[in-house]
Amino acid sequence: MSDAYTIGIDYGTNSVRAVVVSCTDGAILGASVFEYPSGEQGVLLAPGDPHLARQNPADYLEGLRTSVTGALEAAERVAGFSRDRVVGIGVDTTGSTPLPIDAKARPLALDPAWRNHLAAQAWLWKDHTSAEEAARITEIAARHAPEYLAAIGGTYSSEWWWSKIWHCLNVAPDVLDAAESWVELADYIPAVLAGVMRPRDIVRCVCAAGHKAMYSEAWGGLPSEAFLSRLSPKLAALRPRLYDRAWPPGHPAGRLAPEWARALGLREGIVIAMGGFDAHYGAVGAGVGPGTLVKIVGTSTCDCAVAPASDGVADIPGICGIVNGSIMPGYYGIEAGQSAVGDVLKWWVETVCRGGEALHRELSADAARLRPGESGLLALDWNNGNRTILVDPLLTGLLVGQTLHTTRAEVYRALIEATAFGARAIIERLREYGVAVDRVVCCGGIPEKNDLFMQIYADVIGQPMLLAGSPQTPALGAAVSAAVTAGADAGGYASWDGAQRRMTSMADRRFGPHPEARAVYDELYAIYRELHDAFGGVAAARAEPASLMKRLLGIRQRVRAGGMAAAGT
Amino acid sequence: MSDAYTIGIDYGTNSVRAVVVSCTDGAILGASVFEYPSGEQGVLLAPGDPHLARQNPADYLEGLRTSVTGALEAAERVAGFSRDRVVGIGVDTTGSTPLPIDAKARPLALDPAWRNHLAAQAWLWKDHTSAEEAARITEIAARHAPEYLAAIGGTYSSEWWWSKIWHCLNVAPDVLDAAESWVELADYIPAVLAGVMRPRDIVRCVCAAGHKAMYSEAWGGLPSEAFLSRLSPKLAALRPRLYDRAWPPGHPAGRLAPEWARALGLREGIVIAMGGFDAHYGAVGAGVGPGTLVKIVGTSTCDCAVAPASDGVADIPGICGIVNGSIMPGYYGIEAGQSAVGDVLKWWVETVCRGGEALHRELSADAARLRPGESGLLALDWNNGNRTILVDPLLTGLLVGQTLHTTRAEVYRALIEATAFGARAIIERLREYGVAVDRVVCCGGIPEKNDLFMQIYADVIGQPMLLAGSPQTPALGAAVSAAVTAGADAGGYASWDGAQRRMTSMADRRFGPHPEARAVYDELYAIYRELHDAFGGVAAARAEPASLMKRLLGIRQRVRAGGMAAAGT
Repeated sequence: MSDAYTIGIDYGTNSVRAVVVSCTDGAILGASVFEYPSGEQGVLLAPGDPHLARQNPADYLEGLRTSVTGALEAAERVAGFSRDRVVGIGVDTTGSTPLPIDAKARPLALDPAWRNHLAAQAWLWKDHTSAEEAARITEIAARHAPEYLAAIGGTYSSEWWWSKIWHCLNVAPDVLDAAESWVELADYIPAVLAGVMRPRDIVRCVCAAGHKAMYSEAWGGLPSEAFLSRLSPKLAALRPRLYDRAWPPGHPAGRLAPEWARALGLREGIVIAMGGFDAHYGAVGAGVGPGTLVKIVGTSTCDCAVAPASDGVADIPGICGIVNGSIMPGYYGIEAGQSAVGDVLKWWVETVCRGGEALHRELSADAARLRPGESGLLALDWNNGNRTILVDPLLTGLLVGQTLHTTRAEVYRALIEATAFGARAIIERLREYGVAVDRVVCCGGIPEKNDLFMQIYADVIGQPMLLAGSPQTPALGAAVSAAVTAGADAGGYASWDGAQRRMTSMADRRFGPHPEARAVYDELYAIYRELHDAFGGVAAARAEPASLMKRLLGIRQRVRAGGMAAAGT
Repeated sequence: MSDAYTIGIDYGTNSVRAVVVSCTDGAILGASVFEYPSGEQGVLLAPGDPHLARQNPADYLEGLRTSVTGALEAAERVAGFSRDRVVGIGVDTTGSTPLPIDAKARPLALDPAWRNHLAAQAWLWKDHTSAEEAARITEIAARHAPEYLAAIGGTYSSEWWWSKIWHCLNVAPDVLDAAESWVELADYIPAVLAGVMRPRDIVRCVCAAGHKAMYSEAWGGLPSEAFLSRLSPKLAALRPRLYDRAWPPGHPAGRLAPEWARALGLREGIVIAMGGFDAHYGAVGAGVGPGTLVKIVGTSTCDCAVAPASDGVADIPGICGIVNGSIMPGYYGIEAGQSAVGDVLKWWVETVCRGGEALHRELSADAARLRPGESGLLALDWNNGNRTILVDPLLTGLLVGQTLHTTRAEVYRALIEATAFGARAIIERLREYGVAVDRVVCCGGIPEKNDLFMQIYADVIGQPMLLAGSPQTPALGAAVSAAVTAGADAGGYASWDGAQRRMTSMADRRFGPHPEARAVYDELYAIYRELHDAFGGVAAARAEPASLMKRLLGIRQRVRAGGMAAAGT
C-alpha cells in the first residue's frame, strides 16, 4: 500500500508553519515557516497602549500560500512523495483571535477603506484592550446566566470573543457596523481553503465557540439575544449573522477549492479538517487521550485533557474550560493553564538578571546542583495572575525565604519549582473531580531544552514526565485531524486513537521522579498550598505563617545536613 | 581662652581610626587610619568555618600607636594646636569582642606559646561559632534566671561575651585554663593606655557589661556563680577573676601612663575616658539625648536612645538592650537594631544583579523616579533575621507583588522601604513604652550618600530625618567622652549636654516628609505590619492575606492614575 499524506498548518503569534506529514508514521517530509511581515514580529501595536495586539489578515493569506508551497517543495525532495497523495489539510491557530468580515466572508481589513484601521484587523489572542468589557460580561452573566460561566471557570476573559467584539463596538462602532459577521482565525483559514463566499457558510469549530464564545448545545448555541442585548442591542443584532451550530474535529470544514488546488498543486476537493486552537491540536499531536494530560509549556502553559462524553463531567471549580468535542469528538475537552511559566523564568533571567540564553543555561546548570529544599526558598508563580485553579488575574508573585546569601540560581530554581507546584495543583484538582491523569506528556521549547525543568516537574508531581516526540505538535495534530477527517478509505484513519498511535510518538528521554526529592517536594508543596490558599482567597485556607519561615529553614537544614543526592540532572 | 583638645580612637572591624578634636567646636584637626595587617582585612578566618572571625591583638597595639601618632602629626599642621593642650583620650570599639588575658593583663595571643592559636585571639563581634552555647544560655536563663533575659530582649546572642567564653572552653579548654581573665576590647585599650598591669585593675564599662555580659546592679553584677555553674563549673570559677563593678562613661578608666605619654608625645596623667561600643559613642557623637534617636545605618543598623534614669524604664518587649548608664550617665541606654539594612541592598545589587557602586547609584536614580506604592511591591526586611522588635534570627526575607514587568529598581526601592518599615516598627515600639522620639538623627555611609534612602525614611517614619554633622561620629563621641571626663577645669566640659552642644553638629541637609508620600506609606506600613505580625509570630496578628495582593494592586493603580509627585529626590 503506498503512503498517504496530510498537511498541517500552524498559525502562531509571529509566524505560520506548514508541514507535510506521512499518514503512515507521522514523519514530517517537508516543513516551511513564514514570518508575518507586518508590525512588530507580525503583531500590530499601538504606541501608548501596551494592551493592544492586532494582526494584518493579509499576512495570513500570504503565509498560507508561502508556507504550504514551501513545505510541499521540501517534501518533493523525499523519494516516493507525490502531491497527488495529499489527502487532506488541517489548520490550527491562536485564539481567541476574531476578525471582522464582510458579506463575502472577506476580512474587512483587506478592503482599502479599512486597511489602516486597527479595529478592522484581526484581534490577536493576547490583545487585552477589552478588560472592562470582560469584567462587565462576567458580572452580567453571573447575575443573569450563571450557566454560561460554569463551563468556563467562572470568569469571562478579556482575551475572548465577546469582550473583543464589544470593545470594538465601544471604540470603533463604524467597524462593527461595517462588518457583516465576525470569524475566529481558526475558522477563517479552513473557510479560505474551502472557498467559502458567505459568512453563514463558514463551518465553525466547537473549540473556539465553546471555550471562547460561551457556545453550548445546552442553551441552544451562542448566548441568547436577550443576554447579548444586556451588553448592547448591536451585539444582539449581530447574533443571527454569526452561527447556530459549531462542530467538533472530524467533521469536515469543507473541501479544497479549485483556485487553491491550482495554486498549491494539490488535488481539488480533498478534505479540509475543522480548524482548532493550537493548544488543542497540539494536545492531539502529543497523544492526548483518556488518562493522558498534555502540557504545552511556553511563556504560559496550556494543559489539555479529555474525558469520555458518555461519562459526563461535572463542572470543575477553577478549570477554565470543559467543552464537549472541543479537542476530539466523543470527549469533553478540558482546558486548564498557568498564566506564566516561561515568562516567569524570562522575567528573572532577562528583566532582573539582565541576561539572555547563555544565562538561562548557566542558571539552569547552577540550579541543577542544588537539592530540593536546599535554598530555603519558596515562591508563588503568580507574576501574571493565576488562571487555574484560582482564575484570578489580580494575583501577584511572592518569594519567601531569602537570606543575604540567596543566589540568583536559587531563585531561578525556586521559580521553576513554583510553576511545578502550580502544575501539581491543577492535576490534583482534575483528579479530585474524577478526571484520570495517569500519564503526563509535555511539549514546547522549555521541556525540550531544559532537563532541570522536566526533572523538577517529575519530582514535584511524582510521576514520570514524558516528552512529545515531535517539536511541532500543533501542526502534527492538525495533520492527524486531516487524516481522520479524510478517513481510512482515502488513506487516512477511521479513528482518532488509531491515527494517534501511528502518527504521534514520545521522545526516548523521560524523566522519572526520585523518591527522596519527591518526599521533600511533598513537604514544600504543602507549604506552597498554605500560601496559595491563603493569598489566593480559598475559603478553607489554613495557613500557619508564624512557623512558615522556620519550617523552610528546618527543611533546608535537614537537606544540607543529609547526603541526599542532587535531584537536578 | 586657648583651646583644649581630646583624642577619639575608633576601633572598627577592619581598621582603627584616631582623630584629634577641638573641645571648643568639635572640629577635627587631624585624623589617621590604620588598617589591621593580619588576616583578611584584619579578620582572622578559618577555612571551612564561615562563622569564625577573630582578630590579632598585636594589630590593636600597633594600630593604637600608629593611628594616634598620625592624627597628632596631622593636627600639628594646624596653627595653634599643641600636644600639651590634649586633655584626654576616649576609645570606642566593636563589641562584644572579648579576649583572654594573662595575669599581667596582657593578651594571651601576644605570648609566643599562644600566638598561632585561634582561640587565644580576640573573638570579634561577628564571630558566630558559639550559636549552640547562646541557645543553651537562653534556655537556662529562661528557666532559672529570667530577669537576666528581660533587659536584653529575651534572647542571649552568639555574638556575646558568655557564649564566646563558653565556646572557648568547649573547643579550646587549654586556652580557658591559661587565661587569668577575659576583657572586652572596649576595656582593654583604655587599660593599655592607663598602664594597667593586673586584670582586676581594669576599669570595665557598663556598656559592654550590661548589654553583653548580663551585668546589672539589680542582681549584684555579673550572673551569679550558681547560674554560671549550670553552664560550666569553670565559668563559675572564672567569675571572681573578672569584675564586680562596671562604670558608665564619665568615670575615668585611668590616666595616661608614662610610657604611652612618651610614645605619643602627650602629657602624662591626662584622663583616659571609659571605653565604649562604637554604636554608643557614635550616638553620643551624633547628639543622642532625651527625645533624640540616633540611627547608625550600615550593613546592619543600630538604634540608640536614652531615657532619664530617674523616670525608670520598663522592660520593652523586643528591645534588645536597656542598660542604666551604658550610653551616658544618668540615663538608661536603649539599644535596638535591624539585622540587615545596607546588607539587604548589597545582596540585591551585588549578589543578585551582579553590580557594584555604579549600579547602586543607577538603581537609586531609577528608584527615585518611582512614586510610593507605584511598583505594587512590598517586602519584609528579614534576610538576616529580625533583631528588633521580634528578636528572631530564624526569620527570612519575603517579597510580594511581583509581576512580569517588575524591574530591579522597583525591587531595590521596595527593599529600602522594607527597612524603613522595620525602622518605623522600632520607633513605634519605643513610643508605646514611653520613650520619646522627637528627633531622628542618622549617621553612616548610606545616609550620607543615599538621598533616596533618607527621603523614604522621612516619608515612612513621618518625621524629618537629620544627618549627623560628622562622618566620624564614634571617634567624635569618644572625644566628647574624654572632654567630659577631663572636666571643665581642664578645658573640657562639666556636662554631657554642654559638650554635645558645642562639639557635635547636624549637617545642613535634612529630609522632610512629603504629606502625600506619607499617606501612601501609612497604608503600605499597615500591610507590612500584617505580614510582619503574621510571619513574625506576633500573637495578636490579624492578617487578611486573601485581599493583600489586591490591596497592593489597588494602591498601585490609584498612584499610577493620580498625579502625585515623585517622592524621590
